[in-house]
Amino acid sequence: MQAARLNEYTHEMSEALDIEEIDRPTAERSHHVVVEVEGAGWCQTDNHIIEGMWTDYVEQTLPMTLGHENAGEVVEIGSEVETVEVGQKVICHPVMTCGTCRPCRLGEDMHCANLSFPGLTTNGGFAEYLLTSDRAVIPLPEGADTTTIAPHADAGITAYHAVKKATKKLNPGDTAVVMGVGGLGHIGLQCLETMNPVEIIALDIKAEARELADGLGAHHALDPAAEDIVQQVLDITDGVGAQQIIDFVGRDETTELGPQIAAGTADHHIVGYGGHIHQPAQTLVSGEFGFRGTLVGKYAELQELMALVDRGDVELHTSQYELGEVNMVAEKLEHGEIEGRAVITP
Amino acid sequence: MQAARLNEYTHEMSEALDIEEIDRPTAERSHHVVVEVEGAGWCQTDNHIIEGMWTDYVEQTLPMTLGHENAGEVVEIGSEVETVEVGQKVICHPVMTCGTCRPCRLGEDMHCANLSFPGLTTNGGFAEYLLTSDRAVIPLPEGADTTTIAPHADAGITAYHAVKKATKKLNPGDTAVVMGVGGLGHIGLQCLETMNPVEIIALDIKAEARELADGLGAHHALDPAAEDIVQQVLDITDGVGAQQIIDFVGRDETTELGPQIAAGTADHHIVGYGGHIHQPAQTLVSGEFGFRGTLVGKYAELQELMALVDRGDVELHTSQYELGEVNMVAEKLEHGEIEGRAVITP
Amino acid sequence: MQAARLNEYTHEMSEALDIEEIDRPTAERSHHVVVEVEGAGWCQTDNHIIEGMWTDYVEQTLPMTLGHENAGEVVEIGSEVETVEVGQKVICHPVMTCGTCRPCRLGEDMHCANLSFPGLTTNGGFAEYLLTSDRAVIPLPEGADTTTIAPHADAGITAYHAVKKATKKLNPGDTAVVMGVGGLGHIGLQCLETMNPVEIIALDIKAEARELADGLGAHHALDPAAEDIVQQVLDITDGVGAQQIIDFVGRDETTELGPQIAAGTADHHIVGYGGHIHQPAQTLVSGEFGFRGTLVGKYAELQELMALVDRGDVELHTSQYELGEVNMVAEKLEHGEIEGRAVITP
Amino acid sequence: MQAARLNEYTHEMSEALDIEEIDRPTAERSHHVVVEVEGAGWCQTDNHIIEGMWTDYVEQTLPMTLGHENAGEVVEIGSEVETVEVGQKVICHPVMTCGTCRPCRLGEDMHCANLSFPGLTTNGGFAEYLLTSDRAVIPLPEGADTTTIAPHADAGITAYHAVKKATKKLNPGDTAVVMGVGGLGHIGLQCLETMNPVEIIALDIKAEARELADGLGAHHALDPAAEDIVQQVLDITDGVGAQQIIDFVGRDETTELGPQIAAGTADHHIVGYGGHIHQPAQTLVSGEFGFRGTLVGKYAELQELMALVDRGDVELHTSQYELGEVNMVAEKLEHGEIEGRAVITP
Repeated sequence: MQAARLNEYTHEMSEALDIEEIDRPTAERSHHVVVEVEGAGWCQTDNHIIEGMWTDYVEQTLPMTLGHENAGEVVEIGSEVETVEVGQKVICHPVMTCGTCRPCRLGEDMHCANLSFPGLTTNGGFAEYLLTSDRAVIPLPEGADTTTIAPHADAGITAYHAVKKATKKLNPGDTAVVMGVGGLGHIGLQCLETMNPVEIIALDIKAEARELADGLGAHHALDPAAEDIVQQVLDITDGVGAQQIIDFVGRDETTELGPQIAAGTADHHIVGYGGHIHQPAQTLVSGEFGFRGTLVGKYAELQELMALVDRGDVELHTSQYELGEVNMVAEKLEHGEIEGRAVITP
Repeated sequence: MQAARLNEYTHEMSEALDIEEIDRPTAERSHHVVVEVEGAGWCQTDNHIIEGMWTDYVEQTLPMTLGHENAGEVVEIGSEVETVEVGQKVICHPVMTCGTCRPCRLGEDMHCANLSFPGLTTNGGFAEYLLTSDRAVIPLPEGADTTTIAPHADAGITAYHAVKKATKKLNPGDTAVVMGVGGLGHIGLQCLETMNPVEIIALDIKAEARELADGLGAHHALDPAAEDIVQQVLDITDGVGAQQIIDFVGRDETTELGPQIAAGTADHHIVGYGGHIHQPAQTLVSGEFGFRGTLVGKYAELQELMALVDRGDVELHTSQYELGEVNMVAEKLEHGEIEGRAVITP
Repeated sequence: MQAARLNEYTHEMSEALDIEEIDRPTAERSHHVVVEVEGAGWCQTDNHIIEGMWTDYVEQTLPMTLGHENAGEVVEIGSEVETVEVGQKVICHPVMTCGTCRPCRLGEDMHCANLSFPGLTTNGGFAEYLLTSDRAVIPLPEGADTTTIAPHADAGITAYHAVKKATKKLNPGDTAVVMGVGGLGHIGLQCLETMNPVEIIALDIKAEARELADGLGAHHALDPAAEDIVQQVLDITDGVGAQQIIDFVGRDETTELGPQIAAGTADHHIVGYGGHIHQPAQTLVSGEFGFRGTLVGKYAELQELMALVDRGDVELHTSQYELGEVNMVAEKLEHGEIEGRAVITP
Repeated sequence: MQAARLNEYTHEMSEALDIEEIDRPTAERSHHVVVEVEGAGWCQTDNHIIEGMWTDYVEQTLPMTLGHENAGEVVEIGSEVETVEVGQKVICHPVMTCGTCRPCRLGEDMHCANLSFPGLTTNGGFAEYLLTSDRAVIPLPEGADTTTIAPHADAGITAYHAVKKATKKLNPGDTAVVMGVGGLGHIGLQCLETMNPVEIIALDIKAEARELADGLGAHHALDPAAEDIVQQVLDITDGVGAQQIIDFVGRDETTELGPQIAAGTADHHIVGYGGHIHQPAQTLVSGEFGFRGTLVGKYAELQELMALVDRGDVELHTSQYELGEVNMVAEKLEHGEIEGRAVITP
């Protein structure tokens, strides 16, 4: 089958991946599931992987097929799979988990002690077929469009997971800030709006992103580059600040801004990454402020997100590309030229 | 009355405060309480205040009497005070709260919208008498020794508050790390031990502090300056890392170490301060790791800590000094020469 | 001033209360607030009080003015009140709290150790003026209609409190059941709908109540008297049952039905009362099922409900009556003939 | 192999089970594990099953081997089992779970949609060999005594699970009540004591049970049949009542007593069963009181309990019997004549 493979780390996106012919995976173990990929979202993390940014955090062996945001049709199942059948449309939770380690038993799928992460540590979905397992797939309602739904497998669940953590600490009358209204942020904004009757402030330096935010339920869409941005947020919140901040950007600028616009005991959830946190410990103490990292989400949360999608509460904008166009997508994303989420259709 | 006052910010601890004669406070409002101070703990924060480190975070007008860790005897009460009587021994929660703002109604005393913080924003307890209110005082059992109990008013409650936040996420079989076994840390260690049947690792660069930790319930007392400290913690935890980290130090070295010895979804609670956090956002994302600031504690938590003290579960080591010796204490603390917690006895 | 007073417990609603002339209350203590009552909701609990049903639970001395659901205008304030001014419109949380006992410090207003409950244990709001305190009143936005907003002071907050407890355990994809769409239930339904993207089943034996439920966001409005009601709920929930049940009725029939339509680990929140629970302990064990009582709500929750009202998320239907009509209202409610919530306008 | 089988429901314990020869189970599926049973605890629930009390709650087909509290040695594993090896000593979580349904993904093992419950719905451990799966077994440290540890598999985990739920709502200074210091209660008491620095009141009508309670950490061991038992509890708690009640008995008398000795917002956890709850809904409302059923516990909680056992924090008293003595054990338990937990050693 054809697959888009990373052979070498590079900062040159135009020649990042190579389309190669490799063996189709098969369901060798009793719980394996092979999916014919119909949609595989391209994620900012793919660019980060290509640049080698994950080598300090996980073990990677090149060459490797990228693509961790997958949906498609089941074409083969292991001998004891009972939750899906051949022919069924599914969305794939991004990781394969053992189901027996303690994090798995606690429902913490992302922290499985025996994790495989297709597209990050093993072969992913920028290919005709993907090997996954019955603990990763969620059946979709008949007629579901796997191509447009694919980005929920990572962008969606990641945004939902962060919003759910924030939701636990939000009450009516509170204010939540969404930093960055791009691929993840525009989903997070919708989740936040449907799960919380709170005041929502969206921050994005791009005017069109702020317009999008307006249409998706933000009560205020502001430019974080404005000189008086701190004062603007304080004015909206009667001087109190925001109770929860969800940072889909993760740059030095956003982690610098967070504590300045936060109410006491606020959390700043780090979803996006690339930049740093530089803060005096005293700043966290004084406001009882927290920087809390967030990593993808639980399988059960992908089920919950699918319920929201089913209700029509969350929609996402996608643009579609063929497998051969992956490097063009990588380059465009690098320059912020992708409209909505790019989905590869192998 | 006599009071130890800060007239000017300085880094010269030997002449930090001046002993001056000022008016005794009186119970002008219906809920005021005047306490004759019998013990007033000296805190690392006092040194930070003297250096001007808090001017960016709160409003201060000099001159000001320092001292925010107070206990003593009630000598005057406002017209509607019903919870304490003249002659009663009390420990004072460090802040005076309005009782009507939203944070107060949620029990979040430290985030009261109309907060007075004696010793930080108004006159404190390095004086013969202290003005506070019925919402700050907790009656002590008859015969209680206010001098030795005073440090619980800030060091104790702060340590307890951090431990309580960690406790919510600890289960039997987990590991907790205490960074720094000094004034706060040695209380935190005892709270941790009595509230959680978990494995406890104490880290301190001083051998005598590690010995103290051994005696107070730590299962492992390690030197964080050891080259293989990360490996030591991983070995103890079967490669998993610690589920919760409580950092009573708050220096660059401790915030650097935290993520390296943390299990997935761990929190690193920042209690001590003085240093910075410098971390890639990706580090927080990859381990779903959180840096969470913690600020003193709730009034209800000081009640809970008093219950622990009453049970004999938490003891603290103090050394006592006269009001005229405050600058000597300040200097000694600066050089790490104070044994246990220093208490001023005005 | 004129007041509707209970002189003797009775089951004869037509002569339940007497309109009498009594002294106007004054703000004798520093935190007292006197409110000119503009709206005082009549509650099923008023009927229960008249029947003597609360004598086993609280201390009551007759005669007593009833009325615990009050809003109006501040006409006098104690010497240290700083949160409201004379002339301001306010809604009154139903209880007066001391602000210093442990439950108060935890935000558990209803469990204050020194509680006064106007209309239940002291004189209430079916009178021209009501004595309350600055810890009970919430200022309303200019132009607020105190008459129609009054029922939120008890019916609203009680419904909101129960829904908030259920909300903590609901996730997208789950199902919640509302039992009873009357005075409290129709508010609870709206709170549930705005706070939770879940499937909502409303149960009411009255067709018009089911119609109301349809219009307020219920996805299914069913007759609990239907023979196959259990099967209907199981069909809607794919055989799983409801994750949370909020019982605004509290009769033998509703507490009997709950466990039969519940998913594993479900809660059945008891809000309404009058009937009993009769269940084998084994039923609770087998489904890990809980019956959880719920009593009014916190002051902070009334603030949150006011935020929802302000957003337009919760509306309530009221009908207005003069003080002299209280017994007619009592009788009508007894026979289920009140449309929406009855509000007395003294 | 030999097995003790229930052929017919009966109230005659002396002839409850028959020792029969049946086929040894084999590891037919990839995740199956066959354990040679070395200890199988006899539980009050076994008596209840024999009497047919569970037929309304689960599907049972007779004949069936009872025994749901098992430990022993692994003798055969399925083709994909990686967590245990042949020859390893294990304790068995009481249920076999699918690992893919939503409750499994949330860690709620007892609510698995595809549950098998050996000893309740399929063949259990009063036999030479038991069929279970890799999701049920927990490896024991070398040298562990499976016979004495077996009762933790159900009695232990059930007690721990209930205590853990109570722990979430207990703070230092609070009071917890343990009702019944028998097979489960004496474990629950130890868990409570090691996990919570609170005041513990143990209630048991038997003097020797109260003596046992004294030795296991109860601060007060009282006779619930005493006429002034309510007053005794109120005296101990300064009139406030207990914040959490754990009922290991579950009779009419205990569910009647609970609300009378409870503080506001207390929970009464129903662990034991056999009796009923009969209470006015108003009683739950007035005290915001909850009856909360509790069913066995999570796999992750059995891991946690094993950590406590490993620390020496929880010990249990057992007496051992041969397989042929099962009916004698059943009869003795019926008459309260078993010392500690009876363990069958097939």
